[in-house]
Amino acid sequence: MPELRKDPIIGRWVIIATERAGRPDQFTTRPHEGPPENDCPFCAGRESQTSPEIYAVRPANTPANTPGWEVRVVPSIAPFLRIEGELERRGKGLYDIMNGIGAHEIVIESNKHVVNMADLSEEQIARVIAVYIERMRDLEKDTRFKYVLVFKNQGWSAGGGRVKHSRSQLIATPVNPKRVKEELVGARHYYEYHDRCIFCDLIKQELEVGDRLILDSDGFIAVAPFAARFPFEVWILPKKHSCDFTSMDAGMRLSLSSMMKKVLSKLEKGLNDPPYNYILHTAPFRRAKAGYWKSIDYDYHWHIEIMPRLTRVAGFEWGTGFYICPLSPESAAKFLREVEVNEDASYGTK
Amino acid sequence: MPELRKDPIIGRWVIIATERAGRPDQFTTRPHEGPPENDCPFCAGRESQTSPEIYAVRPANTPANTPGWEVRVVPSIAPFLRIEGELERRGKGLYDIMNGIGAHEIVIESNKHVVNMADLSEEQIARVIAVYIERMRDLEKDTRFKYVLVFKNQGWSAGGGRVKHSRSQLIATPVNPKRVKEELVGARHYYEYHDRCIFCDLIKQELEVGDRLILDSDGFIAVAPFAARFPFEVWILPKKHSCDFTSMDAGMRLSLSSMMKKVLSKLEKGLNDPPYNYILHTAPFRRAKAGYWKSIDYDYHWHIEIMPRLTRVAGFEWGTGFYICPLSPESAAKFLREVEVNEDASYGTK
Repeated sequence: MPELRKDPIIGRWVIIATERAGRPDQFTTRPHEGPPENDCPFCAGRESQTSPEIYAVRPANTPANTPGWEVRVVPSIAPFLRIEGELERRGKGLYDIMNGIGAHEIVIESNKHVVNMADLSEEQIARVIAVYIERMRDLEKDTRFKYVLVFKNQGWSAGGGRVKHSRSQLIATPVNPKRVKEELVGARHYYEYHDRCIFCDLIKQELEVGDRLILDSDGFIAVAPFAARFPFEVWILPKKHSCDFTSMDAGMRLSLSSMMKKVLSKLEKGLNDPPYNYILHTAPFRRAKAGYWKSIDYDYHWHIEIMPRLTRVAGFEWGTGFYICPLSPESAAKFLREVEVNEDASYGTK
Repeated sequence: MPELRKDPIIGRWVIIATERAGRPDQFTTRPHEGPPENDCPFCAGRESQTSPEIYAVRPANTPANTPGWEVRVVPSIAPFLRIEGELERRGKGLYDIMNGIGAHEIVIESNKHVVNMADLSEEQIARVIAVYIERMRDLEKDTRFKYVLVFKNQGWSAGGGRVKHSRSQLIATPVNPKRVKEELVGARHYYEYHDRCIFCDLIKQELEVGDRLILDSDGFIAVAPFAARFPFEVWILPKKHSCDFTSMDAGMRLSLSSMMKKVLSKLEKGLNDPPYNYILHTAPFRRAKAGYWKSIDYDYHWHIEIMPRLTRVAGFEWGTGFYICPLSPESAAKFLREVEVNEDASYGTK
């Protein structure tokens, strides 16, 4: 059973995968790019090579774990957290421990061997978004979980695996993660002072100023954030206030999908298929029942943060929490605005 | 002039190097290991290839910027922050900005082409420590600065440069960095409740339990921290309470140097010369005058955190502040305890 351990000094939780104990030699060498793939376990027809599916978008007449699906969700074969067991909290002298209970799922975004989400159709990206929502709603029913993080590790330096089939991940955690809390607390402080949502103010200012704006559609804007941590960092925000990603209707999902495809295509074409992470920032589970977060419907605003991983994070960042971004977000936004993408084209290596 | 920009939501400052604006294409490819070095600018005899020295340990009869030195401090040729100018603080709509005032210095740890600090003699490491203290005391006189971070980026994946000569860095910042504050606040909360220093309690517990202890000397212990973020993370702490690294006397400096050499040699030999960062955690400047930190002499405890960079940090860590450590600190400590190192030997590639 993996353990959650809390750093007693700054309150940061870490996951310790104790069952791998005794294999310290595995860390002495590092693989870089994996071999080309001829036998991808995530392509249609190889369903038996993954764990049995948790959920799939597939015609009603096709059995689970057979071809025919359009989006497929399977448990991670190397889960950071385990679904089975009780959430036992305990102390050990001055330290705090919790069992590593959680869920870790892989969302396979296409039945074909597409490497980059930018090369999926808008309709397919909208299906993936609908699957995120479906899985989040289901995981919320498990009261052991407080949060679900939806994210993508694209490419080796972004933490992607050796298999390159386009996919994202969901991890449900039994505690509200430190960074999520920091963001919620920051947004609440602003709301208490101004009686306005900080993200709504940010959208207004970015639309007025324009120099960090990358795209502006009916439902969403894409901006280079003012205090970007990474070159070409992009945030996608819904223009209409909402704290909860899962509340989107079909129209909004298609509008987001179109924005995602455009932004990811600009990154792929303009930066030559860069490694990147994206992270969905949304309200924690069951916020209505958690008195502490009562105001969250008004003060928090869901969004997606996309972080190309083109620079290395070193001692200074680790020591201070200060990031050094060697490119101004204004330059990054200008560059990305000028990358022309054709909505029907595919730019990536397939 | 680089700018400090504050993320309005979670209060994280970032450094934006705006003068590099307009060169977004530099991020599209990444070099890995650099070429072998035949002309290292940090070796004795090539003093003219660096910026003029700020400080050096050298005989009184040798002029600056000539051979004869044992440790040499020069300004970074690519400083994240600039020493010249006023610390102008300003707003821009909802955003906060500050000029990127600071200092960024390189401590060249040997006049010979040694790559890894583990391969320096204990006496030489003690000289480097004395130089850190000397530079920290000098930078503290500049009232624009609130903190100085001393750190090392060893090896490419740890953010090290293409030139491999062993060196560390000092960066003085005009704000107390977020992570430093978090640690100070965490330590103060513990002290307020228990009337004891959390680090002193931690040392006591680690000495009693023993399974995370790596080395125990007269003045210092080396432990794998309970909530390690990275495999083989090691903390070195002085056993006698002190919040201030610069208060060490010559005996303590030699004792620390001996501990550093042993720990770094174990990492070098046991993990085959891994990339790593180390970070000095010590009290901010002029703490006595900053009423807010009045208790810090009692509640904070300086230490060094060493983080081998053998795993990749991906979307989950960025999104949550949760780290996933795939090796238990108990296994890491056992492994490192068993790596035998000869104090006189050199293990690294020179």
